[in-house]
Amino acid sequence: MPSPIYALPKQVLIREDGPREGFQMQQQSYPTASKVELIDRLSQTGVSSIEITSFVRPDRVPQLADAEAVIEAFTPKVGVRYRALYLNQKGLLRALASPKLAPEGYVLIAASEEFLKRNNNQTLTEAIDQLASWISTFKAHQLPFERVMLSTAFGDSYSGRIETHLVLGLAKRIINRCQEFGLVPAEFTFADTTGHGNPESVKRLVGGFSEVWPEIAVGLHLHDTRGTGMANVYAGLEMGVARFDCSVGGLGGCPFAVGAAGNVPTEDVAFMCAELGIATGIDLKKYLEVAQFAEQLIGRPLPGKLKQAGLL
Amino acid sequence: MPSPIYALPKQVLIREDGPREGFQMQQQSYPTASKVELIDRLSQTGVSSIEITSFVRPDRVPQLADAEAVIEAFTPKVGVRYRALYLNQKGLLRALASPKLAPEGYVLIAASEEFLKRNNNQTLTEAIDQLASWISTFKAHQLPFERVMLSTAFGDSYSGRIETHLVLGLAKRIINRCQEFGLVPAEFTFADTTGHGNPESVKRLVGGFSEVWPEIAVGLHLHDTRGTGMANVYAGLEMGVARFDCSVGGLGGCPFAVGAAGNVPTEDVAFMCAELGIATGIDLKKYLEVAQFAEQLIGRPLPGKLKQAGLL
Repeated sequence: MPSPIYALPKQVLIREDGPREGFQMQQQSYPTASKVELIDRLSQTGVSSIEITSFVRPDRVPQLADAEAVIEAFTPKVGVRYRALYLNQKGLLRALASPKLAPEGYVLIAASEEFLKRNNNQTLTEAIDQLASWISTFKAHQLPFERVMLSTAFGDSYSGRIETHLVLGLAKRIINRCQEFGLVPAEFTFADTTGHGNPESVKRLVGGFSEVWPEIAVGLHLHDTRGTGMANVYAGLEMGVARFDCSVGGLGGCPFAVGAAGNVPTEDVAFMCAELGIATGIDLKKYLEVAQFAEQLIGRPLPGKLKQAGLL
Repeated sequence: MPSPIYALPKQVLIREDGPREGFQMQQQSYPTASKVELIDRLSQTGVSSIEITSFVRPDRVPQLADAEAVIEAFTPKVGVRYRALYLNQKGLLRALASPKLAPEGYVLIAASEEFLKRNNNQTLTEAIDQLASWISTFKAHQLPFERVMLSTAFGDSYSGRIETHLVLGLAKRIINRCQEFGLVPAEFTFADTTGHGNPESVKRLVGGFSEVWPEIAVGLHLHDTRGTGMANVYAGLEMGVARFDCSVGGLGGCPFAVGAAGNVPTEDVAFMCAELGIATGIDLKKYLEVAQFAEQLIGRPLPGKLKQAGLL
């Protein structure tokens, strides 16, 4: 097979993760009604996929203990896909039980073994062994296997930077195992969880992956922890990446936790795409208003730039 | 001549403009001693060029009325070049009169005629006609003609986006006139003054310029007004650009003026360069401390990311 020639995509899918990312690490709790208003406002912006909450243990993340209440209260809009984060199959079953959600069939694995141990309490081998069980659950519920979310794909604070070939080696183990069970993910989403990625490492990883598995789409989930977020988005676009997880206003992270920053701001990414002639389906004017609302809601300045400067 | 092949530079010159950019648009005035402390701290970071103040009319920019007092009080470090902004030849003469400064011979022109009129009270034709007088002053003081600073090189709020060919046409007029007077600038610095640039327009302008004038270096002066700043830096690096005007912490702009944002944060740019294997001479650990100091000094959160997250 010849090497691929990369070009900017004509259109990209922007997935809005703000309502989930924005509240999970806050020290205070926010009213359910505020979260619902944020979701309902996002539904009017043209964004087609919104992660509205997370099914996590209320004793560990009390900020998201109102997950079912949020789902109950928001007003779904036709054409918008509403998702929830889950970390285990119990969470997936909760998501499947909500008729207002259209959950993705995905598996979350971390490239950093230490990160995986601390956050998911499992080893990489255990995570890979569990693929069989995930895939059988997807099959049982006729859920497409939409993506593998590979967090800390560029490194983390335990392991430092992770070299590209190690991540590609892990991808190979994961994909081989998936093939054994007859269901291969449609997408690999590489997450820069902690700002260890840079534009060249993004290019190496995306290019190295697409060279071997051109039939699997690549997504990027980039936290702007150390200022390279938007450059990493652009590097992804240069490699033809057309799926980005973003966060309205740059919601996420925690002002009190060192190294915890939100995703790249949705409206800044959508603006850059528009300037580059890439369609996103997003109404920027409306998004700016929601970003300003998110900032008021959270009660501190959010990093998104466009909401301050306005459109051209 | 064959087309150039672009590659990331091995090293870049980072010029620190924060002490000048940081105070000119603030509503309040800051103590001279604080400005001096910022400069003295920056002198210890390994950065080799610092713009410490601006020779402007005290009645128009009272925040910088202490320019001479700042120059008097700061402690120069051997190996660091201290500069001051000037907008006219009277300002240049004030800069030349300060033995602690090593002013650049430069001419400031705007690509947007309306911007030039409002900020410099002249037309483009008048600005180009004045090149003769500038060049004769440079010659009289044996000052090298170091650069043309072309502000609003990607557009501004009066003209909107400015097409690349128009900027290249203006560059041609400027360079032709300089050649008539026998002194050509060593560098063209393209400034994105108001966030109208994007990574592809940066590439078009840098590439289009370097194709015609490969012997003239390109610099970039990028304000991060709409979130594309760091992506624009990366696009510049991809085109081999090796000179960037930055601002510690992202100092600059004004929290009350819509569309007025600081330059790309020096430490974030230097960090990205370091991650890309590009030398800057900057001690990142020390720079982070100065960025934190700048934030305390200015009394509001500055946009730089690395100072919050810390080094890897």
